[in-house]
Parts: sequence; structure tokens; C-alpha cells
Amino acid sequence: MIDLLKVDSLDETVEKLYNECISGNFSVDVEEINVSESFGRILAEDVISSIDVPEFDRSVVDGYAVVAKDTEGANDTIPTILNIVGESTMGNPQDIEINNGECVYVPTGAMLPKGATACIMIENTENVTNDKIAVYESVAEGKYVIHTGDDIKKGDIALKKGHIIKASDMGFLSSIAVNKIKVYKKLNITIISTGDELIDEKDKYSFGKIRDVNTNLLLGLSKKYNLNVVNKYLLKDDEKLLEETIKNAMKDSDIVISSGGSSKGKKDASSVVIDRVSTSGILTHGIAIKPGKPTITAFDKNTNTILVGLPGHPVASAVLFKLVVINVIYKLMNVSVKEYTFEGIMTENIPASPGRMTIQLVKVDKDYNITPIYGRSGLIHTLAIADGFIKLDTNQEGINKGSKVKVYYL
Amino acid sequence: MIDLLKVDSLDETVEKLYNECISGNFSVDVEEINVSESFGRILAEDVISSIDVPEFDRSVVDGYAVVAKDTEGANDTIPTILNIVGESTMGNPQDIEINNGECVYVPTGAMLPKGATACIMIENTENVTNDKIAVYESVAEGKYVIHTGDDIKKGDIALKKGHIIKASDMGFLSSIAVNKIKVYKKLNITIISTGDELIDEKDKYSFGKIRDVNTNLLLGLSKKYNLNVVNKYLLKDDEKLLEETIKNAMKDSDIVISSGGSSKGKKDASSVVIDRVSTSGILTHGIAIKPGKPTITAFDKNTNTILVGLPGHPVASAVLFKLVVINVIYKLMNVSVKEYTFEGIMTENIPASPGRMTIQLVKVDKDYNITPIYGRSGLIHTLAIADGFIKLDTNQEGINKGSKVKVYYL
Repeated sequence: MIDLLKVDSLDETVEKLYNECISGNFSVDVEEINVSESFGRILAEDVISSIDVPEFDRSVVDGYAVVAKDTEGANDTIPTILNIVGESTMGNPQDIEINNGECVYVPTGAMLPKGATACIMIENTENVTNDKIAVYESVAEGKYVIHTGDDIKKGDIALKKGHIIKASDMGFLSSIAVNKIKVYKKLNITIISTGDELIDEKDKYSFGKIRDVNTNLLLGLSKKYNLNVVNKYLLKDDEKLLEETIKNAMKDSDIVISSGGSSKGKKDASSVVIDRVSTSGILTHGIAIKPGKPTITAFDKNTNTILVGLPGHPVASAVLFKLVVINVIYKLMNVSVKEYTFEGIMTENIPASPGRMTIQLVKVDKDYNITPIYGRSGLIHTLAIADGFIKLDTNQEGINKGSKVKVYYL
Repeated sequence: MIDLLKVDSLDETVEKLYNECISGNFSVDVEEINVSESFGRILAEDVISSIDVPEFDRSVVDGYAVVAKDTEGANDTIPTILNIVGESTMGNPQDIEINNGECVYVPTGAMLPKGATACIMIENTENVTNDKIAVYESVAEGKYVIHTGDDIKKGDIALKKGHIIKASDMGFLSSIAVNKIKVYKKLNITIISTGDELIDEKDKYSFGKIRDVNTNLLLGLSKKYNLNVVNKYLLKDDEKLLEETIKNAMKDSDIVISSGGSSKGKKDASSVVIDRVSTSGILTHGIAIKPGKPTITAFDKNTNTILVGLPGHPVASAVLFKLVVINVIYKLMNVSVKEYTFEGIMTENIPASPGRMTIQLVKVDKDYNITPIYGRSGLIHTLAIADGFIKLDTNQEGINKGSKVKVYYL
């Protein structure tokens, strides 16, 4: 049975749901894909480099490969004269070996000949004859050279399990000759909004009705976090219909979200239904967070499904979607992201809510002044104009004007 | 003819290319799409709200709608007694009108009856009889009420042309009864890498060859910035082949990027080709930026195509892709994004390059300490581990350890 009075902290909520998934052997399928199509995907295993990068000593300038010692003391007025004994070309192996007094022409990126220990920029040389140059620069060993393995060494871990692939990682993987990677399949999600008062674009508007906001909001967040939306439903308040819809969704979804109907109003069916259809029963009914208290979590191990009932208020449902659903699935896939935050200065005092974590939407100007956006939590407009939110921990006092605070992105 | 010695600043480069696009009537096609599929898309026109939101006065609590004045002086020990004259239900119009001494039950979100000026939370009331409540709280007018139009008013601009749709905007648009919006079609891009030394996953490796990094890097950035990749090519250094490939790409692409082959080496064909195939000829050949100097821009008004030759070095090509290509197309579509930056403290001195803008990759720790990542610009690994970059303006002195700097994301 559900104790409506006992609430969990946000951390307890995440921990309970995560632990239940682990003990229920929640698993995410893995698939192999081309690196060229991997943007935003999550690595399901460590990627190990099978080569040194670069694979040979390379020049980083257009110029001449030289024995560094030969250039000692060379300057604008007293050049060193070297014999050109060959030319290195891009993409080709180098058979030449140079000795003291010799050099080889190398374009940027080309392989150094054996014996060369540095490069000279072509701008600092002059042709004396067809096969002799004057060098007007003294270089130390290694100057203008990238050595074998400078970028990454064979056997090194290139990217860790749980890493989210960025554009630069795609280039990086190409450079270590990795063309295919194992990633987690996109998790399937079903989004259900409930409420007799709600209408969507298919319904004719009649005075008093409210347009469903949460479905499109959660569709957008699902897209942002790379989830695959299997289905979406707008349901009337009907316990039987809700149960049937959730049960069906559990067959092909990893995550089932219902929003609305999780507060203690007259017709709230979602807590009863989620309790009944899950092997765990309700894990958390109510989080000590404002807004977002009426949030429900459960896990069903028979169908490998995470069930979350979010509040009907859009701001609360969006914030809790990130703080509970995304946090738990990221933990399950070993994703450790920086919570892309920055710091700024509060321009107003912010009151705390004793015994609860407080989420406050804020705007940030270009000088990092942070201003709270007030508005009742039902007002989706406040979310659209917000740049992020700040968190006041459960037992934190309010924040004073002038304090430094961290801002989280949604 | 191209003057290889004259370089432009980054701002001049962007301005020249933008102006050429404008004078060549560069246009981006517009399409109408469902809000439910609009995440990340760019609005092609202002969206005006055709309704007030909310469309009626609503309660934000479960409780009773009252005449605020009736509750004056009510407290824990001296309640006010009110007659319950009806019940407001979710999603239905309200025909009841209340007078002094009367109240109506309202759940969260339901419409207030006429005459009601505030709400009382159910927790602060007690049923005296079936049709009478004791009110233990004094409320001011408007308490616990969202008034008609509080969120947005009919005729207001909801979102501006050039706005990039976020998840919260999708909810917001639903709330103002907008189900379809006009957005710019995704721009088509062709990505060409050139270099005899380069191989891709289809080629057998032979010693001395270099794996093509830029194609996957630019594919990733294109995905990130929501561009549609029409085609990608890895070409040998061959002026004819490059010209043919670029000319073909111009038929179905809005943007053609070639990378590699834009420095002053022996085999550089891209500047010659881009000059020849474009109506503008080369606009910028060389930017006063480090790394990234050998960057070429042009525009062809016959095919409505932006042509950019990026440096072969991955770090330079990625940074210039953002700073030139993305900046110009965002300007053309009226996109004004905050350059998602944050500030931190430099942990080392950074030297400037006189007469050039300097781009320095950096890592940022959780306390916002910012450390430069050194590495030759060919090393893609440095880009993969970087959290962002800092910019030193053309005539800026170096940055001292302990200074505050802004970090830009790629």
C-alpha cells in the first residue's frame, strides 16, 4: 500500500529506482554502427586504439627536415648551408636517410626521413643552388615535428564506455582507424498524458478545456536526449484505459512516462495503476522538491520497463524528466556528463522551501547576472523563456542577492 | 586574381561572405511542419499567439474559489464560515456565480466561477457540514489564481523568426494552440576532403598514408547544427576531379565544403577551382586567425551556393566551420544564439599572436579553472578532450594566469 505522506529526496528517488533496475537486471541492447552515423550515441564499451597516432614522425610545416644540430648558431646574417638530398611526398613511405649537412624537402604532414630530428620552415630558408639551401634559423630537436604516438598510443583507451559521441570524437575515432563502434540502442519511450480537461490538435476546442502541453514538451526532451518515441497518447481520466495503455506500452518500451494525474486529486489513477502493473510496486510516491512533488516511480522486471508518473504541471514535468528519468538511464549506461552549468551572480534574494529541494527557473544575461523567473508552475511560457534553473538543496537557506550560484540546463 | 598575402580578420570574412550572399539573393526554402517534429528547427517567421493563455481564470491549488474579502481576519482559531454552492470540474465551463459568503470547490487548473477573486487551499479548510466549510486562512485578491492572459496575450509575438525550437518551445506552442509552424528547410551540405595522402575505411592502409579525419568530423558538426549531408567525397589531389565534384555538388547543395588543399603547398587546387566556379570569385583567401589561416570563401549566385575551403588540420577546420560557416548561415536565417559560453580563471599564461586572432583549446574543471591544451593543430585528440576554446582578439595582449576568460563551445 502507498503511504502518501512519506516523500523521498531527489537523491533517494534516483537511487531507489536505479537500484531496482539493477536488481531487476535492466539491460540496454547494444548495436554496432558506423562512426559516420554515431553523433550523439552512447558507447557501450571502451574503445581501444589499435595503432599509434601518428604512425610515423611527421612535419607540421612546409619546409625541410634537418639534423637539428646542424642549425646551431644559424641566424638572419649567418646562415647554415645544407645539401638537398631528396623530397618527402605526402602519403608515401620514406626510404632516404639523412646525415649531417643534409636535408630533405617535406610538406606539412609528410613523413620525416631517417636521421632527421627537426624541421625548418620554408620561410626561413633560401635556395642557394638547385640542391643547396641557406638556413636562417636555429632549431632544437623535435621542433616542428609530431612524433609517432604523440596523439595516442597503441593500446590506450581512446574513449570510455558511457561516453556520448561528439563531432570531434568522430574525427578522433577515424584517426585511430576505428570505423565501427558498439553503442547502446536508443531507448524506447512511450509518453502518456492524462486528463479529462486536456485536448490536442485533433480535438475541437470548447471553452474550459486546456490544451495538452506535456506531450510535445516530453517529445522534445526525448528527441534532445536521443530517445526513440514509440508512441504517444492523450487519455481521459479512466483507470481501466490507463492500465491497458500502460500495459501495452510496457511490451515495446523501456520507459513509460505518464504525466498528469499523479497528485492527490479526486481522479488520480496513475499511482494505483503503476503500483499494480510493476513488479517493484511504487518505489517513490512524492519527492521533496518544489515544484514536482507528485512524482511516482516504479520498475517492472518482467518487461524490463521503467515507469514514471510525472506531475501535470509542465515546468515540474520537464524538470523531473531530466532529474529523475535522464539521471537514472544515464547511470544505467555509465554516462557521466558534466551537467553543463555555469556560474553567475543572483540579482535578487531567493527564498528556500524548508525540507524540500527548490527548483527556480532563471534568466541569465551576457554578464552572468542571474534573475529568477517567477510564474505559477503551470505557465509553460516561463519555461520557454528560461535559460536554465538553479537548485536550492533541501536544507539550504535561501540565496542572497549577490551570491554566486550554479545554473543547470534543462 | 588572388592576392595570397592579404588576409582578412574573422569579422571581415564573415561580413564579406554574408554580404555577397545577400546581394546574390541567397534564399533558404521554407516548409510547414508539425510542432511535434520541430525540435532543433529554425523558425522562418514570427509566431503570433491567437489566444489568451490561460483562456480563463484558473485555480493553481486544490481547494475553494472564494470572494477574497470574505476571508479577512480568518485564522487558525477564528475561521470564516462559507456556503459551498457548487463544484468546478476540470475542462468544463462554469455557469455558477458566487456572492459574498459563498464558495465553490475547484481542483487545480479548473475554471473559477464568476464573482470569485481568490482561492483557498483545501488544507486550510475544514468541512463543517456537507455544504459549509470553515476557512482558516486570509487571502488577498488574486491569491492562487492564474488570470486570463497571464502567460501570453492574444496578438503577442510568441516566438521570433530565427528562433531555434527547444523542447520547452514545443510545449509553449501547444499551449497557444499552434500545431504547425513554418521553418527553414535544413540546408544541404556536401563535404569534400582532398589529399593524395588520405585514406578512408574503404582503402587498404599502407605505411605513410594518413586516415581521413575531417570527413567524419564535419559530418558530426553538420549533424549537430542540423544540416542535411547530401554527399561526402574523399578525393585525390586532382584539380579537374575537384572542379567536377564541386560543380556537381553545387547543383543540389546550399553549402559545399572542401577541406585540405587550401594552404600554399605545391598541389593546392581548391583556391583556383573555387575562384573559377563561383560568381563572386574568392572573397577571402586567408584569415588572420591561428590556427585556421588558409581558409577560402566564395559564393555562387547562379546555383545559390556558399563555397568554403577549410584547412586540412582538423582542429582548424572544426573551429573555422563554426566561426565562418555556421555564423554566416545563422546570420542569413536571423538566428541569434547566445554563444553558449561561461567564464573561468586561466591557470597559465597564454601568449597572443600579434596581428592575428588566436584560438586556444582548453579544458575546464568543475571549479571553472581553465587550462590550455597544447598540441600541434593536426592532433585531433586535443579536440576530442577539449571542453571548448578561448579567443584572443587580434590586437589583444596575451592572457595572464589568474585572468577571467570566456570559453566557447564548438
